[in-house]
Amino acid sequence: MKGVTYAGHGRLETVTVDIAPPAPGELQVAVAYCGLCGTDLHIAHGDMETRVSTPLVFGHETSGRVAAVGDDVRGWAVGDPLTVMPLLWDGTCAACLAGHQHICQNLVFVGIDSPGGLQQRWNVPAAIAIPLPPDLDLRTAALVEPVAVAVHDVRRSELHIGDHAVVLGGGPIGVLIAVVAREAGAHVLVAEVDAARRERIAGLGFPVIDPAEADLIAAVGGWTGGNGADVVFEVSGAAAAARSTTALAKVRGTIVVVAIHGAAREIDLQRVFWRELRLLGARVYQRSDFYRAIELLREGRIPAGTLISGVVPLDQTAAAIDDLGSGRAMKILVDVAGEARR
Amino acid sequence: MKGVTYAGHGRLETVTVDIAPPAPGELQVAVAYCGLCGTDLHIAHGDMETRVSTPLVFGHETSGRVAAVGDDVRGWAVGDPLTVMPLLWDGTCAACLAGHQHICQNLVFVGIDSPGGLQQRWNVPAAIAIPLPPDLDLRTAALVEPVAVAVHDVRRSELHIGDHAVVLGGGPIGVLIAVVAREAGAHVLVAEVDAARRERIAGLGFPVIDPAEADLIAAVGGWTGGNGADVVFEVSGAAAAARSTTALAKVRGTIVVVAIHGAAREIDLQRVFWRELRLLGARVYQRSDFYRAIELLREGRIPAGTLISGVVPLDQTAAAIDDLGSGRAMKILVDVAGEARR
Repeated sequence: MKGVTYAGHGRLETVTVDIAPPAPGELQVAVAYCGLCGTDLHIAHGDMETRVSTPLVFGHETSGRVAAVGDDVRGWAVGDPLTVMPLLWDGTCAACLAGHQHICQNLVFVGIDSPGGLQQRWNVPAAIAIPLPPDLDLRTAALVEPVAVAVHDVRRSELHIGDHAVVLGGGPIGVLIAVVAREAGAHVLVAEVDAARRERIAGLGFPVIDPAEADLIAAVGGWTGGNGADVVFEVSGAAAAARSTTALAKVRGTIVVVAIHGAAREIDLQRVFWRELRLLGARVYQRSDFYRAIELLREGRIPAGTLISGVVPLDQTAAAIDDLGSGRAMKILVDVAGEARR
Repeated sequence: MKGVTYAGHGRLETVTVDIAPPAPGELQVAVAYCGLCGTDLHIAHGDMETRVSTPLVFGHETSGRVAAVGDDVRGWAVGDPLTVMPLLWDGTCAACLAGHQHICQNLVFVGIDSPGGLQQRWNVPAAIAIPLPPDLDLRTAALVEPVAVAVHDVRRSELHIGDHAVVLGGGPIGVLIAVVAREAGAHVLVAEVDAARRERIAGLGFPVIDPAEADLIAAVGGWTGGNGADVVFEVSGAAAAARSTTALAKVRGTIVVVAIHGAAREIDLQRVFWRELRLLGARVYQRSDFYRAIELLREGRIPAGTLISGVVPLDQTAAAIDDLGSGRAMKILVDVAGEARR
C-alpha cells in the first residue's frame, strides 16, 4: 500500500510499504481522506525536527472505513465508517488523573509523535476510533478533527447565545470557530489581514475587518455599543493581535488563546485587572467535541464546500503543502484511497 | 473636626473643617480608625495627579460609629458600629447591568475619587455602610476592607480545599491572600524579596522563598510533586513575577492578577495554550466579600496583631506614609478619633 512520509530535511516522499495485521485492540483503517493543516506544514518545512522521528507518516485529519478488526476489539465490523481522534494519553499523569486526558503531560499526538493517516492502511487503537454516521460522506468527514478544535475552543469560552465574539485570524481554524460560534447563537466579527481570505469570510456572511488598515478596537467598540466583545478568540499567532485582545474584551470578557505563539507576548495586565478579564488557553479537543463536530457536519451547519479548497491524490501531497504555505489554499484534502478518481 | 487632605504636589495637610449634617439617604460616620494602603501612598506621592481633585480627604479602610442619621435612612441608629465599602457605581453601564457593579465602568472609588475616611466626621450614602458586629473591636475592623480584597481574590480563583497556591509578593494584600487561602484549606507558599517581610511571613507559618535568590519554579515543582500550583496569585506587580506565573501553574491551573502592572508584561501564551491555563483579573470586592471578611476577623482567623505594625494619630499620617514607603511597615492604622490615646 502507498503512503507519504516526511523523510527529514524538508523532504516528503511517497512510499510503498507492507502493513502488519492489526494487533489485539487495534483496528486497521482503510483511510479515505486526510486533511492537511498548519502543523503538517511545519513538519514538512522541517520546523519540528526535534519532535518528529523520521521517516514519519504524518496526517491526523482523517476519515475512512474499517479494513480489519484486531483481537479483543468489540463493536466494530469491516466496512464501518470512522474517524480517529489522534490523541494517546498515558492515563497516569496529574493532568490525566484530574480528568484532562486531552492535555496529558505526556501526550502522544498521532500523526506527529506516531504514524498518522497519510497511508492507505493504518493500524490504530480501537479506543481512539470514532464511528461516523452512514449518511456523512467521507470527504466531509475529513473535517471532523478541525471542527472539533473549533467546538472545543467555543465550548471553553463559555460563549452564550447573543454574545459578541471577535475572531482574530481567518485561516481554517479561525473560520471554523466563527461558524461554530455563530451556530451557538453569537454575533461574530472576523479580523484577517489577507484579502483573499477576507473575501471568503465575507462570502460566509461574516463582517470582516483588515486590522492592518482599519482601527479594529474602534470598530469592535462601535459594533458592541461601546462595551467590547464578550469573547475574543486569538487564532492569528501575531504579537499585535495578542496585544489587542485586552482592549477588545468587555468588562469580565473572555479571551481564548487558540494560536501557537512562538515567543512571549506583551499583555496589558493592568487591563486584565481593571476589567476582571479572563484569558484561557484552549488546546485540541475532548471526545465530546468530536461528537458535536460530527453532528454539525451531518446537519450541514459547517460550510464544508467553501472550506475545502482542493482535493489532491496522495502523490501530490508535497504540492498541496506548498499551496497551503502560500496562503492560496484554505483546506486541502488528500484523497488517500483514490476515491475521488474512481 | 480634624482631617487629613492631600493638597497636591506631594503634600499632606492636617486641616480643621466644619461638616454639614448628613443629607437624606446619608449617614454621618464618627470615624474611629482608617488603615493606609498602597494606593494612599501613590496619592500622597503625587502619582495619581490626573485622577484626584485636590484638596482630597483620602483613606478608604475605615471603621467607626454612626454619629448622625440622615432623612430617609432606615435600620441605623446613632452609635451603631460600621465600616464602609468605598464603591459608588452608576448602576446603568453595561458592567453594572450585567451584575458586575463592583467594576462599574464609571466607578467612583470613595477616598480616591470622592472624600474618604481620614476625617473625624464623614458623610456617606447609607447604601455603602456595612454594619459591624458589636463584639468586633473597631481597631481590628479597620482591616475589613483589605481582607475583603483577599476574600474576593481567593473566591475569584475558585481555589479548592487541598489545593497548592503560590502567592507572589508578601505585602499586606499578599499576606492576607495567603491567610484567606489557607483558611479555605489550601497549602500556601509565598515568594517575597524583602527579608523583613519574609521573616514576618514565616512567623505566620508559611513556607516563604526569596525569588531573587532561590529558583522559584524548581521550588514550586518540588513542593507540588512536579505538577505545579493549582493557583498562582500575582500580587507583586513585578515583570519577572508576571513572566513566571505560567511556569508555576499546573495543567488547567489558574493565575490571578491582583497587582497593578504599570506596563504591558511578557506572558508565555504558548504555555497558556499548551496547559490550558486560565489567567483572571481580580479587582476590589463585592458586598458578600465584606461579609466574609467581617466573619473571618470576628472569628480571629486573621492575624490582625501581626499585620497591624503601627497605630498613629491623625496628625502623624504623613510620617506613617513615609514608613509605608520605606517598606519597614506592614499595615499602619490612623487613629482618627484619638481612641487609642483616651
